[in-house]
Amino acid sequence: MFYTIDILGTIAFAISGVLIAINKKMDLFGILIIAFVTAVGGGTLRDLLIGETPVSWMKDMTFTYTIIASAIFAIIFRSKINYLRTSLFLFDTIGIGLYTVVGIDKGINAGLHPIICIALGTMTASFGGVIRDILCNEIPVIFRKEIYATACILGGITYFLLSELPIENNWVFIIAGIVVILTRLLAVKFKIALPTIYKS
Amino acid sequence: MFYTIDILGTIAFAISGVLIAINKKMDLFGILIIAFVTAVGGGTLRDLLIGETPVSWMKDMTFTYTIIASAIFAIIFRSKINYLRTSLFLFDTIGIGLYTVVGIDKGINAGLHPIICIALGTMTASFGGVIRDILCNEIPVIFRKEIYATACILGGITYFLLSELPIENNWVFIIAGIVVILTRLLAVKFKIALPTIYKS
Amino acid sequence: MFYTIDILGTIAFAISGVLIAINKKMDLFGILIIAFVTAVGGGTLRDLLIGETPVSWMKDMTFTYTIIASAIFAIIFRSKINYLRTSLFLFDTIGIGLYTVVGIDKGINAGLHPIICIALGTMTASFGGVIRDILCNEIPVIFRKEIYATACILGGITYFLLSELPIENNWVFIIAGIVVILTRLLAVKFKIALPTIYKS
Repeated sequence: MFYTIDILGTIAFAISGVLIAINKKMDLFGILIIAFVTAVGGGTLRDLLIGETPVSWMKDMTFTYTIIASAIFAIIFRSKINYLRTSLFLFDTIGIGLYTVVGIDKGINAGLHPIICIALGTMTASFGGVIRDILCNEIPVIFRKEIYATACILGGITYFLLSELPIENNWVFIIAGIVVILTRLLAVKFKIALPTIYKS
Repeated sequence: MFYTIDILGTIAFAISGVLIAINKKMDLFGILIIAFVTAVGGGTLRDLLIGETPVSWMKDMTFTYTIIASAIFAIIFRSKINYLRTSLFLFDTIGIGLYTVVGIDKGINAGLHPIICIALGTMTASFGGVIRDILCNEIPVIFRKEIYATACILGGITYFLLSELPIENNWVFIIAGIVVILTRLLAVKFKIALPTIYKS
Repeated sequence: MFYTIDILGTIAFAISGVLIAINKKMDLFGILIIAFVTAVGGGTLRDLLIGETPVSWMKDMTFTYTIIASAIFAIIFRSKINYLRTSLFLFDTIGIGLYTVVGIDKGINAGLHPIICIALGTMTASFGGVIRDILCNEIPVIFRKEIYATACILGGITYFLLSELPIENNWVFIIAGIVVILTRLLAVKFKIALPTIYKS
């Protein structure tokens, strides 16, 4: 189940990487590198921090093949994936929902505190996009006005609240993932943002 | 003893992160993330390099609670912490003094060469601030004209020189930390900088 | 044999770091830090990803001494190393050829898939330069129009193709390294670049 989620997140992030790299007029290898970094960046940081090495994409070739296939697909059908901005946003949002859940699961398996698990989920979901944006010379999406990390954190809190109730574990994870995706979609649609703190 | 120093450094760096994030008009979660990254960034790099995983702040919740409490404190009393620039500089300097000593201690425990221990201390002290500055889109403080890494290195050399003498170990560490803090304070006060090398 | 290649690559990258840091009018410690980061950055990422900690330059002081000696040499003879741009390019290219081979070798020893080994070689070769460029506020060389990662990948493919033939292993590595260096030199000389993908 988690494996499937992980692969789905990989596809979503790889495509989001290809779209932004094409937008930046990168060459073929540049596009592939950005797709790769976006897809595995967050999971790599997570694996390094909990000491699970070699990191997961190095031990299981499914990730590499999935990323290459997604990249080729996105390059070929780039004209069909109209409205680049909208699709990029959608794939990015699906990716953070899926990866948040994968990160929380890995944290629980490593026996870490719920707060740390939520932090791990947030990092898994956001770090790949941060590196992608830095390499593409964009302001990291996580620091733009849109709700981003907040969505991951809300999803994580949802998970730990629901896991107290008699609900099957798989459902808890699915609901947590949906909370992340919906929070971000609604926040962007209704232009909700966190208040900023001014020097009073 | 080292644990106390580590927590004190965490408070200093978390507050320095909050002050710079408020200055940048970030939202609440942005401020918390910058406080966190500033406080744990250097120690995380150190732990990763010597292979001590999961990294220390993931295993011991005291760090997380300290950072959250320091951030809330700094946000509430932000108007009292007048002269943001001066206080930021002061907290930053205290932080690098304390973290240099913690990094050297970890390196010695890992059985590493004195030069590597000094490098570890310098990284522990400076890397959190470097990430903070990159995320806040400032030129990293370590590369500005002020003495920074040099102060850490001088403190490290002081440690290894004094440890040859019959002085109690705790005192050696305290003196080394003070050397770091004083070097930076004096360098900034008297505008001392290292010479630059020009292409002759 | 690999140890010698590793040390040669360290010298080449340390000198390339010194030259760019002098160009940026950094102070003495800044120059040393850039030399260090350029020389050990790629290998550090590689060692972290495969879980070989403490990372290699922390366990073997030869790297530290080599970097310091190379840096002092490059600073003293900076006027003799005329045509900074050309020599920087040459040392950088020799460095990526040598480090690609070292990275592939480490990947094979860790029992990883050939594609992952090639990725490791490419990261070992390019990551130090990427950090150097980010710290010096230059666009990372890997994303400039020049062939860079492509050269590493071609060298990696050459290695795995030749290793099927009855050729002595050391020669396979030497040829692979030369392929990396020649590919980059020829690509720059004849202004060959990969095609970019435009949004059709």
